[in-house]
Amino acid sequence: MNASTVSPLAPATFPALPPVAGATARVARARYKAWNRCDLTFVTLAPGTVVAGVLTQSRCPSPEVEWCRAALPHGRARALVVNAGNSNAFTGHRGRAAVEAIAARAAAHLGCPADEVFVASTGVIGVPLPIDKAEAGLDAAFAAAPCDWQDAAATIMTTDTFAKGAVATALVGGRTVTIAGIVKGSGMIAPDMATMLGFIFTDAAVTPAFLQQMLAAANSRSFSCITVDGDTSTSDTVLAFATGKAGNAPLAAAADPGADAFQAALSQVCLDLAQLVVRDGEGASKFIEVAVTGAETDASARRIALAIANSPLVKTAIAGEDANWGRVVMAVGKAGEPAERDRLAIRFGATQVAEGGLAVEGYDEAPVAAHLKGKEIEIGVDLGLGDGRATVWTCDLTHGYIAINADYRS
Amino acid sequence: MNASTVSPLAPATFPALPPVAGATARVARARYKAWNRCDLTFVTLAPGTVVAGVLTQSRCPSPEVEWCRAALPHGRARALVVNAGNSNAFTGHRGRAAVEAIAARAAAHLGCPADEVFVASTGVIGVPLPIDKAEAGLDAAFAAAPCDWQDAAATIMTTDTFAKGAVATALVGGRTVTIAGIVKGSGMIAPDMATMLGFIFTDAAVTPAFLQQMLAAANSRSFSCITVDGDTSTSDTVLAFATGKAGNAPLAAAADPGADAFQAALSQVCLDLAQLVVRDGEGASKFIEVAVTGAETDASARRIALAIANSPLVKTAIAGEDANWGRVVMAVGKAGEPAERDRLAIRFGATQVAEGGLAVEGYDEAPVAAHLKGKEIEIGVDLGLGDGRATVWTCDLTHGYIAINADYRS
Repeated sequence: MNASTVSPLAPATFPALPPVAGATARVARARYKAWNRCDLTFVTLAPGTVVAGVLTQSRCPSPEVEWCRAALPHGRARALVVNAGNSNAFTGHRGRAAVEAIAARAAAHLGCPADEVFVASTGVIGVPLPIDKAEAGLDAAFAAAPCDWQDAAATIMTTDTFAKGAVATALVGGRTVTIAGIVKGSGMIAPDMATMLGFIFTDAAVTPAFLQQMLAAANSRSFSCITVDGDTSTSDTVLAFATGKAGNAPLAAAADPGADAFQAALSQVCLDLAQLVVRDGEGASKFIEVAVTGAETDASARRIALAIANSPLVKTAIAGEDANWGRVVMAVGKAGEPAERDRLAIRFGATQVAEGGLAVEGYDEAPVAAHLKGKEIEIGVDLGLGDGRATVWTCDLTHGYIAINADYRS
Repeated sequence: MNASTVSPLAPATFPALPPVAGATARVARARYKAWNRCDLTFVTLAPGTVVAGVLTQSRCPSPEVEWCRAALPHGRARALVVNAGNSNAFTGHRGRAAVEAIAARAAAHLGCPADEVFVASTGVIGVPLPIDKAEAGLDAAFAAAPCDWQDAAATIMTTDTFAKGAVATALVGGRTVTIAGIVKGSGMIAPDMATMLGFIFTDAAVTPAFLQQMLAAANSRSFSCITVDGDTSTSDTVLAFATGKAGNAPLAAAADPGADAFQAALSQVCLDLAQLVVRDGEGASKFIEVAVTGAETDASARRIALAIANSPLVKTAIAGEDANWGRVVMAVGKAGEPAERDRLAIRFGATQVAEGGLAVEGYDEAPVAAHLKGKEIEIGVDLGLGDGRATVWTCDLTHGYIAINADYRS
């Protein structure tokens, strides 16, 4: 892989993620590839931990995704195993057997049912995960000393150029609960190596249904609102685990005291993690926020925003620091959503460049040029039709993306 | 623009396009840009010429598209005017005024109603087409000697690297009818310069409704089945003109004798023209055919085929000559159409590489590698679900695409 240098959009440091009572991470070398780094992450979770998750909508998911989908309804988790270097996707019965073997091994270590072990894998596709390496790696991890979240975040990486974590706290019934998360991903996907996997750990006491409801809501405004190349992994997985160790009165409904604080903190962690994935987008040199307002509905706004964010022509224009609002018009037009050319308004940064169906005559190009030279780009589109709004995040499309994805052999 | 060299996928020569009785092309220098080339094409059509068309589905179309959409139901045409260098899109009332002025000027020259003049423009967006240049150009073209189709094909070009034409004949009621077409386009779109415009001229006698029916059918398996970057122009236009000079008994229904021959010839011309656009795809180094079979329906097959053809990860893999079928699985999975991972079969060229949900063990990599080194790539996907099938065409995604679209200032 060519992605050896850290993304220019990376934050300066990994944030200080505190321990989460009841969740203990360990890492080991399973050597899924010929590399000398840890590539297996094993997180043990205290008895009573509840789990929620959102999984790829791909019609061709990995066996790990199928395993998690089947286990999630039980709502209980005792362990998470993450393999980096081999996605185990599209490997038929041998892939399924590998997931079952991993779950059984972890369950044996912990004395828990196998369906309380959650498994995620990322890396090359089409090669069954070697069971012997996975089992040896698990045994080694089980015997290892606990590590911090930064080590775990580094161990789940594949083509990522930096480790990604986020944290927030919330006051729930007089107790401070902590929400810590790690994520990996650098294309929205590449079945090769760049699947998005996100794991969130909290000591809050919650019911599984409440956690699922909160995660789904947070996901809809974070992980579901980012795109690097519009491609969708066979393995994308976000799981949230709540150990209950904070000692708060368990949250069970959105109306419970503290539920709003919990939702806000969880949403912030998800948004931070999602934006970090965009900041590590393959070849990215600009972080782009696309804010659509005035659509008929929020859903319509989101589809228009994603049409803009996924347009190769918009993304290459931003790479070229070109205020090419014509390409934004094109993307709005192709989204298939209600739009009226003669009500459309477009801004780059704070400068309105088009309005009422035509260019703003004589708009000041200097602030637009200055904005586009920066690393954080805002594209604003107002449709002038209703109250629907959505914001999504993406990155530009550069020679780096081509180099990573074309000049590479699977 | 950087696209000065001819695409490596271009045919060796422009085909020999014969004159079409009743359709006379002339070109002139309107100088829409600071260039010394003809950029206005004026085709006069004999009285009685009928017209059909398919237009962009963009919600933000150019005023030319709106003009054509309004004029098409009349079914009659006396002239076509094509401007290259300025798309006149997103220019508000001034853009509409320019189209009206052009139609009025051409109608005055010919003594026909303005709504029998069809207008198409391609080039920069957001700048109203200068009426004075258009009128002077039209006057010059009207006074010029007729030109051949190759000159017209060259005059409608923008970022195209070669002129594009196709021809076919059909025997209709004992008369040979000729169908000649020209097209321009090199991204599926770029509002800057790469809109697809196609114009087809035939001496067949047909009714407008018949021509519309035949063109819609041909379009659905040609222009609607190509993609360069998944973006959709605000100006995409395909118009077919039939002068009736061949003297055949007018075709009015699909069951008429000769209608099937006419349909076959028109479909061939549309397919040839559509594939030429792909062969001039921005930065293209490989021509890719994606054939999907075994889908639940033809429409489902087409959506899956386009998901594959539009996937940046598939397109970069082909650019890298990498038999990365995992990315094809990913694209099938993200299409949102019925698919079962464990029935999926994938081939590159003639070699099956995946089958029944996993890699074909020990498949011969030599013919796959040889196939991917060529310029004509076939990706075959069988879903194993039904009889639905579709074939689409695209090109790879290379550094050239980024260079053309990012290293360029509008």
